[in-house]
Amino acid sequence: MGERTVYFLSDQTGVTAETLGHSLLTQFNSRNFRHVTLPFMDTEDKVREAVRRINEAAAAGGPRPIVFSTLVQDDFRAIVRQADGLHLDIFDVFLEPLGAELGETPTHAAGRAHGMSDVHTYMKRIEATNFALANDDGGISRNYDVADVILIGVSRSGKTPTCLYLALQYGVYAANYPLTDEEFEKGELPELLLKYKKKLFGLTITPERLRQIRRERRALGKYSTAQQVRFELREAERLFRRYAVPYVDTTEFSIEEIASRILDSTGVERRVRP
Amino acid sequence: MGERTVYFLSDQTGVTAETLGHSLLTQFNSRNFRHVTLPFMDTEDKVREAVRRINEAAAAGGPRPIVFSTLVQDDFRAIVRQADGLHLDIFDVFLEPLGAELGETPTHAAGRAHGMSDVHTYMKRIEATNFALANDDGGISRNYDVADVILIGVSRSGKTPTCLYLALQYGVYAANYPLTDEEFEKGELPELLLKYKKKLFGLTITPERLRQIRRERRALGKYSTAQQVRFELREAERLFRRYAVPYVDTTEFSIEEIASRILDSTGVERRVRP
Repeated sequence: MGERTVYFLSDQTGVTAETLGHSLLTQFNSRNFRHVTLPFMDTEDKVREAVRRINEAAAAGGPRPIVFSTLVQDDFRAIVRQADGLHLDIFDVFLEPLGAELGETPTHAAGRAHGMSDVHTYMKRIEATNFALANDDGGISRNYDVADVILIGVSRSGKTPTCLYLALQYGVYAANYPLTDEEFEKGELPELLLKYKKKLFGLTITPERLRQIRRERRALGKYSTAQQVRFELREAERLFRRYAVPYVDTTEFSIEEIASRILDSTGVERRVRP
Repeated sequence: MGERTVYFLSDQTGVTAETLGHSLLTQFNSRNFRHVTLPFMDTEDKVREAVRRINEAAAAGGPRPIVFSTLVQDDFRAIVRQADGLHLDIFDVFLEPLGAELGETPTHAAGRAHGMSDVHTYMKRIEATNFALANDDGGISRNYDVADVILIGVSRSGKTPTCLYLALQYGVYAANYPLTDEEFEKGELPELLLKYKKKLFGLTITPERLRQIRRERRALGKYSTAQQVRFELREAERLFRRYAVPYVDTTEFSIEEIASRILDSTGVERRVRP
């Protein structure tokens, strides 16, 4: 079987169609897909052009294309249904029962989801991102009083991307502080952190994986030796246990999962909804 | 009518359920919702506890809860269907037609979507994030040769969060360079950037909105005066036009939208799929 093209069609960014489609496709073993996102399909011409592309892919002789779409307008969905492919659209299926429940007909206002309907939301995400950057790696600001959570862990355990994801996705104020030989020699967390003990959350990782990540950054030197990596992780986990800091092993997790687990475990509230 | 509780149930992070639910709800005028995400519902006990919470909310007398869920296991979905609320589950609806199309039965491997099935994907996102941080604000690295895109624009036009979003979501290498009085006085882009002219993409914004954003950061001084803001934006747009740099007005857009528009306009390929 040849490669199958999967289209993500949207009158907006395509993020919802991609997320939906990805969730569904990972339930199957097939992997031979070519992904094509067609965002901002907000005129009839653009939708017809998308259908032309889908039909062209279908005509090429491989397996029939799959089309995940989130098109708000009924007439646009009707056009896409004519394309030579399997068409799955969340609005087709869910809009009617939801409208019946809410006692409302949908406004069909394309561009409202993910739209900057709310300037406030945008600002919150930006502010949280600035906070994460200023408080990265025990950085200059150390505004731990306004932090929602302070991630601690050894170098390259995933602190920075997790903080940035929490900020961008949820508007959560996440600082991070690296655990180094200084803390390990004393066997103590610094006073600076202990003042905010309830906000601390630890990240750990397996030695094998950490070595792999560190080697990409700096192949030589003590930093990525098996011995050093094992020492740091053992001491970090000892500190987590000593101070009863909740922690998660990030080895098998994506950034989304680490972030979700932190929110779930700490009970920190999302400041914005994506 | 009282507040209606909307649940996002998932055996994983809840990101797909939240994204789906948010897209659908924004099609209606109702806004009086309380959002509750219940992630990692991966045992029967947890699912039953979720149903208990939903029924408790229903019994409180307000409008019936709405439940968006992405539960892979049939038996868990069956339990949630018994809850007192409107239950919308993407697996219920789409898994069967998709399986028929692929000629496969779903593997029902909970935790595969968003899972770190692919270490390679994780590394790519981390590397892209490190690149964005090192190349932020015309930063120290200036590895523009490996950049996929270089965002240019005045201070606070949205460059940094957009670069970080492109990195975390799509693994795209995005650098950014601030346009300042230096460029405006010369009326030229620096040689450093012109070497990579095809990678440049401009961000602009309305003067009113930029002033509002800058005031939050620094209320006093020339930085957020109406005159300065208008001058900088006029000169920046003049530079975009002079060098035929494509650009977008970010005023009405969310970070997702700005990022999608950049990928759509430049044709830069996502290095990873979320």
